[in-house]
Amino acid sequence: MPDLRKAAIEFAHTNRDRFLEELSELIAIPSISADTAYRKDIQRAAEWLSEKLKGLGFENIQIMPTAGLPLVYGEYLKAGKDAQTMMVYGHYDVQPADPVEQWDSSPFEASIRGDRLYGRGATDMKGQVIASLAAVEAVLQSGGSSVNIKFFFEGEEEVGSTGLDAAIIENKELFAADFALNPDAGMLSATLPTITYALRGLAYFELHLSGPSHDLHSGLYGGTVLNPANELARLIGGMHDAEGRVLLPHFYDSVRELDDEERKDMARLPHDDTFITEQTGVEILHGEKGYSSAERASGRPTLDVNGLLSGYIGEGAKTVLPAKAMAKISCRLVADQDPEEVHKQLIEYVEENIHPSMTWEVILHSKAVASISEKDSKAIQAMSKAMKEIWSTDPIFRREGGTIPVVGYFQDLLGVESVLTGFGLPEDRMHSPNESLHLPTWEKGIDALIHFIYNVGE
Amino acid sequence: MPDLRKAAIEFAHTNRDRFLEELSELIAIPSISADTAYRKDIQRAAEWLSEKLKGLGFENIQIMPTAGLPLVYGEYLKAGKDAQTMMVYGHYDVQPADPVEQWDSSPFEASIRGDRLYGRGATDMKGQVIASLAAVEAVLQSGGSSVNIKFFFEGEEEVGSTGLDAAIIENKELFAADFALNPDAGMLSATLPTITYALRGLAYFELHLSGPSHDLHSGLYGGTVLNPANELARLIGGMHDAEGRVLLPHFYDSVRELDDEERKDMARLPHDDTFITEQTGVEILHGEKGYSSAERASGRPTLDVNGLLSGYIGEGAKTVLPAKAMAKISCRLVADQDPEEVHKQLIEYVEENIHPSMTWEVILHSKAVASISEKDSKAIQAMSKAMKEIWSTDPIFRREGGTIPVVGYFQDLLGVESVLTGFGLPEDRMHSPNESLHLPTWEKGIDALIHFIYNVGE
Repeated sequence: MPDLRKAAIEFAHTNRDRFLEELSELIAIPSISADTAYRKDIQRAAEWLSEKLKGLGFENIQIMPTAGLPLVYGEYLKAGKDAQTMMVYGHYDVQPADPVEQWDSSPFEASIRGDRLYGRGATDMKGQVIASLAAVEAVLQSGGSSVNIKFFFEGEEEVGSTGLDAAIIENKELFAADFALNPDAGMLSATLPTITYALRGLAYFELHLSGPSHDLHSGLYGGTVLNPANELARLIGGMHDAEGRVLLPHFYDSVRELDDEERKDMARLPHDDTFITEQTGVEILHGEKGYSSAERASGRPTLDVNGLLSGYIGEGAKTVLPAKAMAKISCRLVADQDPEEVHKQLIEYVEENIHPSMTWEVILHSKAVASISEKDSKAIQAMSKAMKEIWSTDPIFRREGGTIPVVGYFQDLLGVESVLTGFGLPEDRMHSPNESLHLPTWEKGIDALIHFIYNVGE
Repeated sequence: MPDLRKAAIEFAHTNRDRFLEELSELIAIPSISADTAYRKDIQRAAEWLSEKLKGLGFENIQIMPTAGLPLVYGEYLKAGKDAQTMMVYGHYDVQPADPVEQWDSSPFEASIRGDRLYGRGATDMKGQVIASLAAVEAVLQSGGSSVNIKFFFEGEEEVGSTGLDAAIIENKELFAADFALNPDAGMLSATLPTITYALRGLAYFELHLSGPSHDLHSGLYGGTVLNPANELARLIGGMHDAEGRVLLPHFYDSVRELDDEERKDMARLPHDDTFITEQTGVEILHGEKGYSSAERASGRPTLDVNGLLSGYIGEGAKTVLPAKAMAKISCRLVADQDPEEVHKQLIEYVEENIHPSMTWEVILHSKAVASISEKDSKAIQAMSKAMKEIWSTDPIFRREGGTIPVVGYFQDLLGVESVLTGFGLPEDRMHSPNESLHLPTWEKGIDALIHFIYNVGE
């Protein structure tokens, strides 16, 4: 191993405890993007990152307002005009912590137990952000980087990155790069380094139904007017057939089918039924007929209710006929599906099926197209080599079921392809109570990122 | 008009403002039975009533614990052993005030605007309780009553009177009476005094579904496991057919059909479609095919969702695949339907229709049988005469869609038939924000109750 590379790896090992302290500091800021009550914490997290970039010697550091929540940007351009430029992506926002009572330790106070560090954002993705910063610091402290580096941190990934596209369009020159590193995609297991070449898209809606002008006594009026909660349930119940297919009109018309090679690859993944049962606690799996669980988890579109609310939900029995009912409903999309089209399909479904006594509204909360990348680009090959160096095995190339809007935006708006990877594991409980980070994997991840930076600079 | 009767009416008119003050005091106690956070207020309301009975000169006053919430009892037996004994029923608990933000004035601070007094419980039924107390006070202050009087106030009518039957069984001798007065049933309009001869029953359930062991990321697991919120919606959606009939197995088997005379009476009620549209704001009515709105509102059983809760219901978009989903569901029942049978029918429906990956539970919150009374009893005729004296028109005899468990218990356990009436109006928004009491009708109601006490004593 060349001396500089070796020195950088040693620097990372020596400073491991400080990196953990930095991660704990960042977790302690409850930067929840879904709830406006935490806007000051969003700002605090942005400032924390901007200070960190300053400490690394980055220049042109900015907290940039957007139509949504602010971006943090900083650049290291000392590799020179002829060198390649890498954009490192991260998001500093996190999911809400509720149900808070199900956490074994406080969600915003990092707690190390065994091999794991617990806290909201530990794996998704404050842990990954700190790993990227640590790898870059190690390289810069060991003689400097031969690639230019731009950090790009957004604050609204968990709510659909609504202000991101406009901000990218306005700053195309600033954000110009040869490729992007995006460590928000995770590994299949602690022994299987993973590069994700496809992501699902997302269309997230709220469906509101209103019937009576006010909540009614179910004894006096029950039987005379349609109950919006009953009707909402009926509408949702009709959105799937008995074989698990989504029944929005024309939903599958533009879906790109999985090809035979992909289906073969997926059959070799460790994501089999046993794995899913272990991760979810569900013994009998369910989904679209004709596809394996692994295929359904990443290569097929879905429709899921994310939230339901109507009437009286407190303790005991209130005999109310509710005036309104609400569902949060989202579709995961695959390549060639257009979220705006799915929005129209949902509206058409409601129009065709709802009882005429209801007034209703469909709100499109967020949207993102699915993405698919080339597997043999220089940057992806550099990551593949780095992973083999650390894990002594070739990485697995896979589709992922989640959504990262920025990947589509970088591709479409900047012409920048992302190397999608990351060091989170399926058992990390991202988005759930007791989210955690597997520390041995995280430490290997930092080493792999150091190798990656040297590999792309060669 | 005989002098005593006239004096009693005058006493009531003279003391009208004090009665209103008493009503305001009682409304100021948030005696919400559905929420255990208000148990001290339940106790305070019981004590307020017990003090009031003491002030009226009642004896043997008790706040009686039950398996549920306490009863308040007091008796006036000076009419002697040969006189008739009347039990006056009331409930001192109220519905929750939420959604609190939809009230124009504080729900627990009585506010008079125009002809109306606003506040939770104003019409259901603290206003009716104060009217009964006022009428009895007026009679006692004007030479005494020639009927014995027992007051019986329960504190859990709004949550299904779970402790009531056992308490009645334990105190059969104490509660012995010739008939009961129950002013919890209301009038059809301010010009139509009303006696209710039939009530619907109630079976109130919570249906809980659980799937994954914890909330999942809908991107990682969406498509692989059944979503409990989707499944709950599908189950509820299947509980009615397209013609508004309930699809629980054997639901209609024991339903007593309306006879031709009743259907003719109902066709003459002012409860036509226009009336229901005015009261509910719903233009296009809906319910079981083959029955008029008036018939559906009181003579036919129903199934309504009272509450729905699952997943993320806060602001914004959380891409969670929820671990569980809950619905509060209640059925209004008609004569000869057994709430326990309906409980079994719901369990059977879920067993037959639910996906095998779900675990589930049906909780029976409260139950009450429907009731039907004789229209030509001495007590009902005395009330009819009293109402004609005040409103110059014969009262309407009607079925009501609501449920008053105590009526069934008095009938079945004590052999005591209830005169069901009251001075609330359909537009009073009982159980809703901005509940109110129509004061001119309430004042007439006090006068009618005074006449009633003299009539039954003649």
